[in-house]
Amino acid sequence: MLVENTRLVQIGRAVTPYTQQKGTPIQPWRGESVEAHIEIYPEFRDGLNDLERFDRIWVLSLLHESTGFEMRVIPYRDTLLRGLFATRSPRRPNPIGMSLVTVDSVDIEKGIIRVQGIDLLNNTPIIDIKPYVPQFESIPDSASGWLENGNDTRVADDRFDKTD
Amino acid sequence: MLVENTRLVQIGRAVTPYTQQKGTPIQPWRGESVEAHIEIYPEFRDGLNDLERFDRIWVLSLLHESTGFEMRVIPYRDTLLRGLFATRSPRRPNPIGMSLVTVDSVDIEKGIIRVQGIDLLNNTPIIDIKPYVPQFESIPDSASGWLENGNDTRVADDRFDKTD
Repeated sequence: MLVENTRLVQIGRAVTPYTQQKGTPIQPWRGESVEAHIEIYPEFRDGLNDLERFDRIWVLSLLHESTGFEMRVIPYRDTLLRGLFATRSPRRPNPIGMSLVTVDSVDIEKGIIRVQGIDLLNNTPIIDIKPYVPQFESIPDSASGWLENGNDTRVADDRFDKTD
Repeated sequence: MLVENTRLVQIGRAVTPYTQQKGTPIQPWRGESVEAHIEIYPEFRDGLNDLERFDRIWVLSLLHESTGFEMRVIPYRDTLLRGLFATRSPRRPNPIGMSLVTVDSVDIEKGIIRVQGIDLLNNTPIIDIKPYVPQFESIPDSASGWLENGNDTRVADDRFDKTD
């Protein structure tokens, strides 16, 4: 069932060293030391005011290399089939990525957000930026199901590539 | 600039007591004691396996009552104009909501996720469910800019209603 009258607007793009999923960090906090930024297009740059005083932001993106999906997947950190919605697999009904990244600097005029810890492929379309608010979103003791026993895999292999 | 070839698939809907934005909790954790659930449509229910062992989930939704946007807004918790991307205003270029809710129970067969702390209007289209993983996403001391001095408003008024 398609959502009616919905179109996604690209507000910018990711500029990262990652050109294929294999080898890309699995979660944003894994990729700390690479040069990366988000480029926001001119008509949206005024919305970047006040962002620099946040340590972290949510970067919502369209995972453009993701195609198709299955309702059970074996995640990187596990060896068993898990329900898709209990995983962060990029292959989803709506392949929207939520990346929590650290903000180094914001250049409003040029539309450049320098970030650390990004896990997006180069040129991934950006569709939203939201502030990270620990008062709402930091819940250290929240149980995390199968992930509590997961292994410590740090980079992606090719299991979710579209060429699988 | 529209993202090419993108359509959003509705995987379910929110069932909540909230029928208008005015009076709806501002952030999910404010709305703890109401009866609410997410209904997932049949073809996506198998993806709910393993979800119940997570205390919290991210519910991604399409904020269907949100229309239009401006690059500066006065947030509920403030009295000054702020850059849109430094706020959680529902009026955005892509009105995608990210609600962090507590999972009470998951009925895979019926496609019902009973939740606490939801901030969505009744019948809001759901487009994704992701597990909340504190190992990645809980950063208690992350600076939160203007929100650190914000007031303690608990429910919405009508400033972001489409009838403004």
